[in-house]
Amino acid sequence: MAAPKTKVTITDVAKAAGVSSSAVSYALNGKPGVSEKTRDKVLKVADTLGWRPNSAAKALSNASSRAIGLALTYSPEALTVDSWTLALLSGMSFELEKNDYSLMLRIIPTGGDMLSIHREWLADGSVDGVVITNVEIGDKRIELYRSARSMPVVAMADPSVTGGLPTLTSDDAGGARLLVDYLHELGHTHIARVAGPERYGHTFSRDRAFIEETSAMDMRYDCLHADYSPEQGADCTARLLAFGDPPTAIVYDSDSMAIASMKVAAERGFAVPEQLSMIAWDDSFLCQTVTPGLTALHRSIVTAGKQVVPMLLRQINGETVGNEYEEPYELVVRDSTAPAPVHAGQ
Amino acid sequence: MAAPKTKVTITDVAKAAGVSSSAVSYALNGKPGVSEKTRDKVLKVADTLGWRPNSAAKALSNASSRAIGLALTYSPEALTVDSWTLALLSGMSFELEKNDYSLMLRIIPTGGDMLSIHREWLADGSVDGVVITNVEIGDKRIELYRSARSMPVVAMADPSVTGGLPTLTSDDAGGARLLVDYLHELGHTHIARVAGPERYGHTFSRDRAFIEETSAMDMRYDCLHADYSPEQGADCTARLLAFGDPPTAIVYDSDSMAIASMKVAAERGFAVPEQLSMIAWDDSFLCQTVTPGLTALHRSIVTAGKQVVPMLLRQINGETVGNEYEEPYELVVRDSTAPAPVHAGQ
Repeated sequence: MAAPKTKVTITDVAKAAGVSSSAVSYALNGKPGVSEKTRDKVLKVADTLGWRPNSAAKALSNASSRAIGLALTYSPEALTVDSWTLALLSGMSFELEKNDYSLMLRIIPTGGDMLSIHREWLADGSVDGVVITNVEIGDKRIELYRSARSMPVVAMADPSVTGGLPTLTSDDAGGARLLVDYLHELGHTHIARVAGPERYGHTFSRDRAFIEETSAMDMRYDCLHADYSPEQGADCTARLLAFGDPPTAIVYDSDSMAIASMKVAAERGFAVPEQLSMIAWDDSFLCQTVTPGLTALHRSIVTAGKQVVPMLLRQINGETVGNEYEEPYELVVRDSTAPAPVHAGQ
Repeated sequence: MAAPKTKVTITDVAKAAGVSSSAVSYALNGKPGVSEKTRDKVLKVADTLGWRPNSAAKALSNASSRAIGLALTYSPEALTVDSWTLALLSGMSFELEKNDYSLMLRIIPTGGDMLSIHREWLADGSVDGVVITNVEIGDKRIELYRSARSMPVVAMADPSVTGGLPTLTSDDAGGARLLVDYLHELGHTHIARVAGPERYGHTFSRDRAFIEETSAMDMRYDCLHADYSPEQGADCTARLLAFGDPPTAIVYDSDSMAIASMKVAAERGFAVPEQLSMIAWDDSFLCQTVTPGLTALHRSIVTAGKQVVPMLLRQINGETVGNEYEEPYELVVRDSTAPAPVHAGQ
């Protein structure tokens, strides 16, 4: 009998390791039920034999589900103002449909048990691959998929927080530098930022880049962290403008925080852009339509969604995938930014 | 042997009809492979025995998928401005998560093969139920699920276009009357509407109600149909304002069409609201943030999303579900509407 070109299966690993197939399955999926010693042994044998996630996924589920998993956390109300999510879904779907794949979507309330959804996906074969977004520093999902090794994954995050999993990365540091340099050229010497949640890897990347670049340019820099909601954005703006010596420009980590803050500035008597420049990160339809139009940092999230799917499909087909980068940011200058006001003291 | 309380299975139907189980499965799922005669016979026998979709779905798939299917059509770029979709996803997810259900999402390009996705869902057991949105007049999805009878379905549409499938209906006629009466009270005698696509059932319901109500109020009424995109909305507005005798108020079937049209009105020298009143249907965060704030017809899409899921879950559990109604519309008056301008001729 001529042996066809074969893939290494869980059964092969089980035989070589001298354990049961289910022990191998548990070990490769990061589930309890095997000792650490057995897990280590299985992982070593799997490595030696050249076992790859795809063959295991097929063996476990007996067939491809032709679905990709995406689990997001948002409060149901806040979600309705999040253009980033829709653009991502839109771009991903465009590529998924071309390959007759479905998107398995979970949207859980903030603070919900995200990890158990991912554990289920690892265990039940209902998805062939997973996209992870909003990666936190020390994110447990990263640990789960790193130790499981059986699931094709792409993390949309900075490689510094993804422990070697394939990543699709936006150039957050580059975007931050672009903004600081632009405001510096306009003569601003004291700027502020209303940032996203501190626990996110991309917030951290931006935090660091803003501090470094404003320091290099000898500018004052204040930063408050919020949850992307219009309410918290407005609240942070009110606090920044209450300073005896308020900033002359504020950068917002979401369009809706920036827009909600325009009213706050008006109420406090800060004319935009004459007394206060405002910038949104990311750009959106909202930024175009408000008055004055919001200067914004632009990238195509739809394009990022289109990029992430082939990275998964290639892994599902057994290819090794490294890190890739989103298109660079572009600054879209509208009417909400102007040269720094000249103060009495200057 | 004491018989436990049993459900009627496909095997029972097959025995009683004197055909094979697979013939029954084909017939109940609306798939090719059986003659019309056999299909009719199977459907009659299934009716007589009291066979219900749920038992068949379980028999076919052998296990619940714990997923609900939702397939939408949008161009990837237009999707990024659609707040309705995000609100629906958000509300549905809220209820799905409470029941440990997933959402199987398909977003296909406009003009894509929507029907084959639904055929797959009927055939492969990957979803336990389906939500249908944007129902067209004579919609083939309705025919498919009506003849299949094996899948729990809720159509978000007017019962007049869903052929007896369970529906969740928004009061489009009531919303239209609310708007016409409001503009009539403000003294407008010539109003216009930039509507959504003519093929949708809900567009048709609104069309009819606008014609009836403006006629009852003895008002002039013009209507142009567009695709909800900002571009087509702006284009229709330009055409309406180019009339020798333009309308003094325009109602838009989407927020983004209304907002894109505000610039057109300004460019053509129509002051809003002094010379032209503008109203958006539905209300959204965008309507609050633009200047002037847009008067809008408000309903909670998040609430509708929360409503539709239990209607499906009850069917999955074997209950019969009828038609339900969304919360009534409310008019949110902002700064984009005013009494009709007094013309020279009046």
